[in-house]
Amino acid sequence: MSQNILYPNASVLAAATVVGAKEHAGPLGQHFDYFNDNDRFGQDTWEKAESEMQRMALASALDKAEIKQDQVDMLFAGDLLNQCVGSSYGLLSYDIPYLGLYGACSTSVEGLILAAAMVGGGFAEVAAAVTSSHNAAAERQFRTPLEYGGQRPPTGQWTVTGAGAFIMTAPEKAVGHELARVTHALPGIVVDMGITDANNMGAAMAPAAVSTLMRYFDISGTFPPDYDLIVTGDLGWEGSRILCDLMMAEGRDIASRHNDCGKMIFSRNTQDTHSGGSGCGCAAVVLGSYLLPKLQKGELNRILFMATGAMMSPDSVKQGQSIPGVAHLICLESPRRS
Amino acid sequence: MSQNILYPNASVLAAATVVGAKEHAGPLGQHFDYFNDNDRFGQDTWEKAESEMQRMALASALDKAEIKQDQVDMLFAGDLLNQCVGSSYGLLSYDIPYLGLYGACSTSVEGLILAAAMVGGGFAEVAAAVTSSHNAAAERQFRTPLEYGGQRPPTGQWTVTGAGAFIMTAPEKAVGHELARVTHALPGIVVDMGITDANNMGAAMAPAAVSTLMRYFDISGTFPPDYDLIVTGDLGWEGSRILCDLMMAEGRDIASRHNDCGKMIFSRNTQDTHSGGSGCGCAAVVLGSYLLPKLQKGELNRILFMATGAMMSPDSVKQGQSIPGVAHLICLESPRRS
Repeated sequence: MSQNILYPNASVLAAATVVGAKEHAGPLGQHFDYFNDNDRFGQDTWEKAESEMQRMALASALDKAEIKQDQVDMLFAGDLLNQCVGSSYGLLSYDIPYLGLYGACSTSVEGLILAAAMVGGGFAEVAAAVTSSHNAAAERQFRTPLEYGGQRPPTGQWTVTGAGAFIMTAPEKAVGHELARVTHALPGIVVDMGITDANNMGAAMAPAAVSTLMRYFDISGTFPPDYDLIVTGDLGWEGSRILCDLMMAEGRDIASRHNDCGKMIFSRNTQDTHSGGSGCGCAAVVLGSYLLPKLQKGELNRILFMATGAMMSPDSVKQGQSIPGVAHLICLESPRRS
Repeated sequence: MSQNILYPNASVLAAATVVGAKEHAGPLGQHFDYFNDNDRFGQDTWEKAESEMQRMALASALDKAEIKQDQVDMLFAGDLLNQCVGSSYGLLSYDIPYLGLYGACSTSVEGLILAAAMVGGGFAEVAAAVTSSHNAAAERQFRTPLEYGGQRPPTGQWTVTGAGAFIMTAPEKAVGHELARVTHALPGIVVDMGITDANNMGAAMAPAAVSTLMRYFDISGTFPPDYDLIVTGDLGWEGSRILCDLMMAEGRDIASRHNDCGKMIFSRNTQDTHSGGSGCGCAAVVLGSYLLPKLQKGELNRILFMATGAMMSPDSVKQGQSIPGVAHLICLESPRRS
């Protein structure tokens, strides 16, 4: 084994999602657990609002799983804010051992991989993973404060206001309550194709998705038709088109079974988000609210879920560095299948 | 098991350290693998210099371990820069699956815990962990650029310019080359005691160290005299005093066997660092250069090593939030002991 696929065989016992107004108004609006009409969640800063979403998401996931916080062995969490304060403050009220992650928008799957491995490796009976992003906090930090009224190009994406929390345990402890099983996982290698346009994250991240997907198909010996869906986190319309083109050039046609959470969460016709949704929260809330229930019901049998991240900072872009991307992958299977 | 100790039983096969001029001039100067007299490492920004230290540290550690990069199953890395760009750019030249961490100055032990667990859980034959900090990059980001000439209070600490890399594998694959074994690990719970002074990180982090240490002693049934050393990452002189006082109040006298990497790396008499060293790199380079060789030789038999982190951001402090701390712990044992 070297740089091989992991087989954690851990179950998603519960998931919960919290979103903002625009996400609630989108095509998946009815599926989210909680939303807030002004994106403030009762807080006086956008950053605290993001933290509050994380707190709410984990509280709701624990509640659904009927698990108390002292039964959770460890918690993986991350977000896009400097020093990941969305997570550290958001989860401060929980007395759960905390392992902070930074994988940009790939953090949701990074957390799921590590939580699943800790359960599968026997280091945790219960592990949790939480991620979030908040549009207004991200705009202030990565671009300009909303009040500035900056214009975005057509390749720009709209950072999702949302948080998702997931509770994982061993399959034998989830019988009858399992949403899905993480059967395979493959952490991504960071790829830099020289993209320097911070308003085209889809283009920066698509090659990383190709890298991970091709490694996965090669090692597993599987092909796109072996999966009901191949879902990416937040490539948006621009990045998704690039992904499908690049995969076709590699001889793997995924177009008919590919979808992207950044495309699914907003309406292209009625919601002005340019190239679609993005942010750590995007993949997390679409997985938690929409895809996991379909896996639980058996409407989907087996999917590849891959969150993509752009590993830059505003400073690194200003210093002329290009934008590296990374994509972490999990294979999720329906409990009705196993 | 709930929030219990992990028993990863993984071996540190190699470690390498890279530091700046001030660290090289300090009491441990002769122990580091590489240093640079102007802290620039041939780069044109401080941030790129930090990345270059990470690249050098991992290259050297792989070389010492006689391991090629494609034999490394996964790499855990993190730093203090916004969006952890020290790590993502620094390790970009390696084709190794990358899992980014953010644990502030606790990142070194967070990475060691996860790398050890991935090896111990059978998910990796070889895993690596890398962390760094750079004084000038940290000053620019967290306080003011060096050119501003800002004054620091006596409780302020000096961010270490340094990077440490560690290669871990199973004990049976490290026979004859093992530096130390990670026998126990305990991830920390985030603790907030209401400290709001960003120039007194020692005070913000000491209660987290007490929390983890007391949890560890309680669960393991061990006592301070069971360990040759109880080492913290970067509490400095101020935080170390607080830690020993708080532990004494809990009925555990650790003063005679406690030391702190932030105290060890700089001379209190001849180097003006106020309360001592800090930063992700501080604990990593002291462990890699000084403590691991002592464990390998049997000069130390069993130590507790605990890196402490302050989970704030400059923005969260400006928004009036207090500074939460976290401390992750590993127990390291000499190969001559096992």
